[in-house]
Amino acid sequence: MSEPTIDVVGIGNALVDVISSESHEFVASQGLVPGSMNLIDEDRREELYSAMGVGTEVSGGSGANTTVGVASLGGTAHYLGRVRADQLGEVFAHDIKAAGVGYSTPLATDGPATGCCLILVTGDGQRTMNTYLGASSLFCESDVDAEVIRSGRILYLEGYLFDPPAAQQAFRYAAAVAHEAGRQVALTLSDGFCVDRHRDAFRALFDSHVDLVFANESELCSLYETSDFDAALEQIRDDVPLAVITRSEKGSVIVNGVDTVTVAAAPVERVVDTTGAGDLYAAGFLYGLARGYDLERCGTVASIAAAEVISHVGPRPQVPLAGLVAGR
Amino acid sequence: MSEPTIDVVGIGNALVDVISSESHEFVASQGLVPGSMNLIDEDRREELYSAMGVGTEVSGGSGANTTVGVASLGGTAHYLGRVRADQLGEVFAHDIKAAGVGYSTPLATDGPATGCCLILVTGDGQRTMNTYLGASSLFCESDVDAEVIRSGRILYLEGYLFDPPAAQQAFRYAAAVAHEAGRQVALTLSDGFCVDRHRDAFRALFDSHVDLVFANESELCSLYETSDFDAALEQIRDDVPLAVITRSEKGSVIVNGVDTVTVAAAPVERVVDTTGAGDLYAAGFLYGLARGYDLERCGTVASIAAAEVISHVGPRPQVPLAGLVAGR
Repeated sequence: MSEPTIDVVGIGNALVDVISSESHEFVASQGLVPGSMNLIDEDRREELYSAMGVGTEVSGGSGANTTVGVASLGGTAHYLGRVRADQLGEVFAHDIKAAGVGYSTPLATDGPATGCCLILVTGDGQRTMNTYLGASSLFCESDVDAEVIRSGRILYLEGYLFDPPAAQQAFRYAAAVAHEAGRQVALTLSDGFCVDRHRDAFRALFDSHVDLVFANESELCSLYETSDFDAALEQIRDDVPLAVITRSEKGSVIVNGVDTVTVAAAPVERVVDTTGAGDLYAAGFLYGLARGYDLERCGTVASIAAAEVISHVGPRPQVPLAGLVAGR
Repeated sequence: MSEPTIDVVGIGNALVDVISSESHEFVASQGLVPGSMNLIDEDRREELYSAMGVGTEVSGGSGANTTVGVASLGGTAHYLGRVRADQLGEVFAHDIKAAGVGYSTPLATDGPATGCCLILVTGDGQRTMNTYLGASSLFCESDVDAEVIRSGRILYLEGYLFDPPAAQQAFRYAAAVAHEAGRQVALTLSDGFCVDRHRDAFRALFDSHVDLVFANESELCSLYETSDFDAALEQIRDDVPLAVITRSEKGSVIVNGVDTVTVAAAPVERVVDTTGAGDLYAAGFLYGLARGYDLERCGTVASIAAAEVISHVGPRPQVPLAGLVAGR
């Protein structure tokens, strides 16, 4: 079997973010849970966009942000995700390639518009996301490039992609291709409400398809339907070979069978926008793993990458991360 | 004649900015003069966009930025400019309305795509702009809403709009409507190269149609084809009732017939992106004029507005300007 030529292959919802600064009152008036991710349809997108303030458009998508982070760290990455051949689709394709990530999914010439995520950022840096999946909702098995997956050291699956109907099957297919080629498969749970919607499917995927799971506290607790973090941690320790749990300013916990490694959060002068924190943590961790770093060093690199992205508006790094982690 | 209900009505090229951080070497390798504005066609837009780094999309357009600045200061403003009913056109329309500016130009359902400006920002904050006019290139007399112009205290014309063929005639029509209604007409020269292309047309417009001209040093010198700033200043003093010349960190000079008022630049901690500096200076000055401020106070408010916009990426204010100028 040939050696992998790509560090990380990511699959996820390809989205352009529309970011606006909003008050807590506005978030509440829209009936939104602060910090949540909500799926919205086209009508709701129009309604919320009309009510929102001035926007900034930047390419996003959780898994896409992660692959961009890997590239920014000096690794190699490829992304699979579906946009339409419209203006925002061209923006998405341009930006991910300009960031040094391979991207070869053909732009769809019909069907829904490129997906977008309306992100309301409050003064405390918390983001509340409203995702119109658009073209991404049709991601399916035929969008999975088996040759690319076989070329990747680690396949990274974005949990949000459990929402579009055809994508779960594409996940299972991609994971099977990766495992057949002797590659590792990582999964992020993405969002507590997403776990609520797809708890059984996530757990089923654990059994045969997943080597590494990323989750934050609320996603982990949602997965095991408990409010007891320590109990949930013991459950995931049994369920997957490697689990990485992020805890915001409390840092992260990595469990690898019997071992438990705790990593402090990297210092941040001011949290401006938490969008992309989990995505960039995953980027740093996967980059380290691909480099053969030990778990503590993987977590340290991950924390530095996450700290950079929450110090500014937007879900992708604004400076080359390789410089920030040199010597760490 | 009824009292005006709008402080400033702006007319200009309606554009969405695509901003990327680039090196001086990249700007030079693209054959571009740093700090210039270049008109580009669709092929060149594709070519340059492919070569550019990761972008951030924000609504722009010089005259549009000025009207947004007036609204941010607490004034009332309306904008006339042409976009297409595509994704970027909807972004433009959303953002200007969300900023509190009236905007009623119908989105075109055919013709070229919404215009964009590819802006390369170097580490010293200098911006080099590459404008694809798109839908804006078809702005014409029928896009001039005479009722809106009559409702505005000051009509503000963006010099860049001299480039699209039909727009010069629209300018003359708009200025005539404003003067018939007893309103003031202001013009910004926009760019030295733009002045080069349209020197005679600019001067002809001075004669009968313009009460107030905004220019920076290079635009002023280009207009009178001299490198002697003082000589050029004396010429424009004779040519228009009120001229406002901005000189970057050297502040600004306002000449009103016999009077000369100099205003210092407002302090800026770090110049991040000079895009919008002239636009926001004009916003502050016009807001002050509409409020009946004396010229020095108009210049002071203008300088504060300009200082805000160059302290961050993007051509529009990120905080309400009214708060920054309170008591000034």
